[in-house]
Amino acid sequence: MRLINVAAAQLGPIQKGDTRDAVVSRMLALMDGAKSRGADLIVYPELALTTFFPRWYVEETAEADRWFEKTMPNEATAPLFERARSYGMGMSFGYAELTEDGHHFNTSILVDQSGTIVGKYRKTHLPGHAEYSKERSFQHLEKRYFEPGDTGFKAWRTMGGIFGMCICNDRRWPETYRVLGLQGVEMVLIGYNTPAVNPLRDAEGPSERLFHNRLSVQAGAYQNSAWVVSVAKAGIEDGHHLIGGSLIVNPAGEIVAEAKTEGDELLVHGCDLDDTVFGKKTVFDFARHRRIEHYGLISEQTGVIAPE
Amino acid sequence: MRLINVAAAQLGPIQKGDTRDAVVSRMLALMDGAKSRGADLIVYPELALTTFFPRWYVEETAEADRWFEKTMPNEATAPLFERARSYGMGMSFGYAELTEDGHHFNTSILVDQSGTIVGKYRKTHLPGHAEYSKERSFQHLEKRYFEPGDTGFKAWRTMGGIFGMCICNDRRWPETYRVLGLQGVEMVLIGYNTPAVNPLRDAEGPSERLFHNRLSVQAGAYQNSAWVVSVAKAGIEDGHHLIGGSLIVNPAGEIVAEAKTEGDELLVHGCDLDDTVFGKKTVFDFARHRRIEHYGLISEQTGVIAPE
Repeated sequence: MRLINVAAAQLGPIQKGDTRDAVVSRMLALMDGAKSRGADLIVYPELALTTFFPRWYVEETAEADRWFEKTMPNEATAPLFERARSYGMGMSFGYAELTEDGHHFNTSILVDQSGTIVGKYRKTHLPGHAEYSKERSFQHLEKRYFEPGDTGFKAWRTMGGIFGMCICNDRRWPETYRVLGLQGVEMVLIGYNTPAVNPLRDAEGPSERLFHNRLSVQAGAYQNSAWVVSVAKAGIEDGHHLIGGSLIVNPAGEIVAEAKTEGDELLVHGCDLDDTVFGKKTVFDFARHRRIEHYGLISEQTGVIAPE
Repeated sequence: MRLINVAAAQLGPIQKGDTRDAVVSRMLALMDGAKSRGADLIVYPELALTTFFPRWYVEETAEADRWFEKTMPNEATAPLFERARSYGMGMSFGYAELTEDGHHFNTSILVDQSGTIVGKYRKTHLPGHAEYSKERSFQHLEKRYFEPGDTGFKAWRTMGGIFGMCICNDRRWPETYRVLGLQGVEMVLIGYNTPAVNPLRDAEGPSERLFHNRLSVQAGAYQNSAWVVSVAKAGIEDGHHLIGGSLIVNPAGEIVAEAKTEGDELLVHGCDLDDTVFGKKTVFDFARHRRIEHYGLISEQTGVIAPE
């Protein structure tokens, strides 16, 4: 048995006017709660320090730089690193990253129990669009404010297991989990900010969005025999509704914990990393069953080429 | 609107002693029922003509050749082709194929409304094992009796849409649907024979097996914005229990029809192939969102290589 007690720390909304200090206070309160429940690792969502600013259009993207972090840790987030280290707790959260040479990424980090950043992931699958879109009921400008990540899907051996990360829209793409699975990933950490309504189809509301959230995460877990911890920023943020539905899913694809609110909420579950072994040695024993000679299109061809 | 009225023709068990003629009579009765409900296309399961013989070990695999078809159509299956043509109904079913040059495949065919075989698929992901296995509560010798398919996952433009096929265990692998999705597939036809208990873990019974069946098929449909018609051979076959749970799933991943029995049973649903367009143009617009530069491992590496 290799037990990791994981806390999925869902955040309620962060309004445009909220300071990073105010947000970090909420994150620390969740960390205290996780400690009292014996957590070894706490997972916060995508863009955990700010509002989901890609919903706002600005002409000059430099105006959005105030939502980005130039260093990590920095003054605002140092208390998170300090408290996690003092608790001997690992930590993961997402933030907007502005690099020294001026690149913008939607990023998440994995921090081990000594407070060291052992993994950094930059979001690969940016949804939405780059220019103002009149046909949408609201904007989703991730392709404007971020570049596609340059890290790929890397897995890290740390804290007694093999961990990977991905962010929001990445979780809908089976390629995400499979690249991690081919590195033997045992636990995938996901953060997301997902509008509760499809901006291109009003009829697609919260229940369908929550269904797709579950379906994607459960399939990724099952098909790679890995734990998945998927954590929302939720609720009414600057007048826009984000789904909750944070999940912990076991390597059989079954939900073992699910958030009930759209506010700050903690799910804690003891995950035995050895539960990943059965699936990895039987139905999903990749070495015995995969037939890569028939998978070429997946990495050779980006878009659809239909038959004549 | 491009409506295809599809009949998922679940078969109950086929016992070892049942003749092909007896089975074809049952298939014809289902076809008649499908006709009376206006079906344009009927889909039967994997190994639709015989019992699931890979559960039986024989020393000399040639002894199993009696379960294989050397030509298609042949005398036993000619009535299926004739009646389908007379009804103007497309058809798909699975069978064990023995080629002229002695190769053995687990095969399915797609027959258009004029009775022409327009597509042939040979199963890629063979589950189970090749030698007698003492640790299993029953045998699953697909790797003994079949060679891995040599066709890959091809999509065909026919009957007013783009169709693909896969067989049983293929449906658990996201690579299957994605290779088809990259060809713009609008409807995936699946047949399966799935034991109701995991032979390596008795605790994994019918409800978990049905859950994995749904999860795999629904995820494949959603993540490629395609209809999926997935059809079981079900019930107690030669003393071994196979799950039912045949499904028709829409391009949003939602179940629109599900079998209620483990016998011969028909599900008929009008599927608008234009319902695939919204997903293919938005969330799963592959050309805009996929990042193949990060998918290399999927087609380069068969098994797991874990980080140091």
